[in-house]
Amino acid sequence: DPAAPVDVAEAEEFVRQYHAENPRAGYADERLAAVRAEIDATGTYAHTPEELTYGAKLAWRNASRCIGRLYWRNLLVLDRRSDRTPQEIYFGLVQHLEVAGGAGSRSGRHARGGNIRPVVSVFAPAVPGRPYARVWNEQLIRYAGYREPDGSIVGDPGQEQFTASMELYGWKGEGTPFDVLPLAIETPEHGVALYELPEEAVLEVPISHPEYPWFAELGLRWHAIPAIANQRLTIGGIHYPLAPFNGWYMGTEIGARNFADPDRYNLLPTVAQLLHLDTSTETSLWRDRALVELNRAVLHSFERAGVRISDHHTEAARFLEHVRREENAGRKVPADWTWIVPPMSGAATPVFHRYYHEADQRPNFYLDPEAQQLARTGQPGGW
Amino acid sequence: DPAAPVDVAEAEEFVRQYHAENPRAGYADERLAAVRAEIDATGTYAHTPEELTYGAKLAWRNASRCIGRLYWRNLLVLDRRSDRTPQEIYFGLVQHLEVAGGAGSRSGRHARGGNIRPVVSVFAPAVPGRPYARVWNEQLIRYAGYREPDGSIVGDPGQEQFTASMELYGWKGEGTPFDVLPLAIETPEHGVALYELPEEAVLEVPISHPEYPWFAELGLRWHAIPAIANQRLTIGGIHYPLAPFNGWYMGTEIGARNFADPDRYNLLPTVAQLLHLDTSTETSLWRDRALVELNRAVLHSFERAGVRISDHHTEAARFLEHVRREENAGRKVPADWTWIVPPMSGAATPVFHRYYHEADQRPNFYLDPEAQQLARTGQPGGW
Ligand code: HEM
Ligand code: HEM
Repeated sequence: DPAAPVDVAEAEEFVRQYHAENPRAGYADERLAAVRAEIDATGTYAHTPEELTYGAKLAWRNASRCIGRLYWRNLLVLDRRSDRTPQEIYFGLVQHLEVAGGAGSRSGRHARGGNIRPVVSVFAPAVPGRPYARVWNEQLIRYAGYREPDGSIVGDPGQEQFTASMELYGWKGEGTPFDVLPLAIETPEHGVALYELPEEAVLEVPISHPEYPWFAELGLRWHAIPAIANQRLTIGGIHYPLAPFNGWYMGTEIGARNFADPDRYNLLPTVAQLLHLDTSTETSLWRDRALVELNRAVLHSFERAGVRISDHHTEAARFLEHVRREENAGRKVPADWTWIVPPMSGAATPVFHRYYHEADQRPNFYLDPEAQQLARTGQPGGW
Repeated sequence: DPAAPVDVAEAEEFVRQYHAENPRAGYADERLAAVRAEIDATGTYAHTPEELTYGAKLAWRNASRCIGRLYWRNLLVLDRRSDRTPQEIYFGLVQHLEVAGGAGSRSGRHARGGNIRPVVSVFAPAVPGRPYARVWNEQLIRYAGYREPDGSIVGDPGQEQFTASMELYGWKGEGTPFDVLPLAIETPEHGVALYELPEEAVLEVPISHPEYPWFAELGLRWHAIPAIANQRLTIGGIHYPLAPFNGWYMGTEIGARNFADPDRYNLLPTVAQLLHLDTSTETSLWRDRALVELNRAVLHSFERAGVRISDHHTEAARFLEHVRREENAGRKVPADWTWIVPPMSGAATPVFHRYYHEADQRPNFYLDPEAQQLARTGQPGGW
């Protein structure tokens, strides 16, 4: 609960862990005393930049649903704690996308971006008992979903309610299946305000298939950066309600969920038809075949565009390497089997064939019910 | 624990449930008194044939890992409680396979069997404190796995240790990749004895592919009936250590696990090569493509042979229908997501997109550690 006073025990535990894992930071005792004194005096305490950076890395390391944790030490942490106004926050979010997209890196290949790097931007912590700034969007980049008069949906059906609400707030999209939604930035002083992302900040990949030319004619595209925007980062009892983070995509997130789920773009029937598969019987496994081709297209297109992505076999192998390394360091890896196992070809990946340590360890990221409902409906409060 | 005295509370709970769900069986009170008296006098009690039948159906209904529960009322329960000698037990197991295989049904199509039906054979209950009869095999039909001098394995690597042990007990297989293992039947009076299944009792399907003629040349085959032999059936505090049960196959059990798992027949690399897929990179999704073709071949071959099988999409839809029906009857369905979601194309099946009620309800089937180790090693004792 971001409104609750700081939990001293959690603060102490974090400071101890930080010092235990970072011997060069000196002994914990002095810092512990300072933190206790600061909490006594103000009801909270401020993380040093080093604590913030390491705490965010630990939150990633503890994210039990994340298969991508091998590179947890390489997280880039952008300290945005002094941003206050909606404009400052907006600027910070745009910069997050630019840094995460790897634009401007020297190599010619990534001149227009694509060398995606894992980034978290940490905005101001919640002060116990006071309102705080947040972003309503589920991810920094998502496509609008418009309900048409005939009941069908253009765009992402998962964003239908959010899109309708943005329209009530005055936003108007072009009406294509891939209109980037505006950011809904809420601050205590200014309420909610909508901001359009500049085109340069939204790296996108047109989807084609390595073998079937007709695939490109479907006109599919997807954004390069999956940046979750509405989870609360908790470090040592301090809550950061606005701390968007991203990695690179694992292909199945797009090809086996965003494009395939019946309540999202629902493309399996379309692709199966274009592949001339027999959809009159399930035993032709037309769903499975369309699914594989859709996912091949996603991986192929990102690779061709020079945008970093990885497949589920590679990420699964990396994750088991992560588990080995962590165990060598004397730590168990908290993991949720139902999220770690990829949404297609589950048993064909090595992560399927074992059990995991299930634990809720902090620091971590949490999705609060209120944040979830804001992202779903684009409306505060109630139903 | 099959050696423990009967739990009276569990007996009472079962009798009450039996009568509650079967109003025509009369009031529970009289039967409850009789059961209590019998336990007082003998330390245990005997199920009526009707209780046994309904109890076994409840055990299936409560099997939280089983996706196939829609037809739980149609379970055929064979009462084998008076069988004692290894010969009697062997005869009962052979008959189980014959009944389950649907041989001798009138229809021409299934003259040689194939109209698989769900069956459980319930042998004698464990008498508290006394040794009991059991079968060591994990399933009534499994293929041997032979370690060759060069370290490779012919047959099912999952059965390597069990096979080696059967050889120590004097069994000798032909050495093909699909030799049916003997049944290891243990009784208190006779110790363990091996029995070969008669050919007629082992319905098998040669595997071919609807499009690729070379597939048949791989010489693959699989047995028609998946009959788990080493789980203990528990009904109302009574333990039946020998109660083999079977349904029909869901194709993925063969195509996505038995044939595909790296520590089983490990066929994905072979199939991918024959499909001329690019196995030099994971991003070609060669594993996923080989997996789909392998599973198409399994479904196609069973259908062609007239042997009942179902695909994971159909079973997933049936399972959700089961959940609806149970909820209409005022009951929650205990289910384990990690087992219910099929091992391929998980998110393309509707069972993926929800949570389940996790509960261990009795009656049920349990795999005891000792049974597990007997099936793995083919040896009693050990660690
Ligand atoms: C570096 C590349 C990364 C990859 C390939 C990766 C992959 C994934 C995947 C596949 C999921 C499941 C998503 C879903 O099914 O909806 C996931 C979830 C998650 N990841 Fe990662 N990830 C990466 C980086 C990160 C980073 C940098 C963070 C945080 C600093 C992070 C934190 C999380 C969290 C908190 C979840 C759970 C999200 C939820 O509850 O919806 N990941 N990740
Ligand atoms: C009628 C057709 C049936 C189908 C299609 C079916 C399907 C399945 C599947 C796919 C599994 C998971 C197997 C695995 O991943 O290893 C399973 C597990 C299970 N099923 Fe069924 N089943 C059927 C009938 C039955 C019957 C008749 C019973 C008992 C009377 C039963 C009891 C169980 C149990 C106890 C498990 C868990 C096995 C374990 O722990 O290894 N099923 N079933």
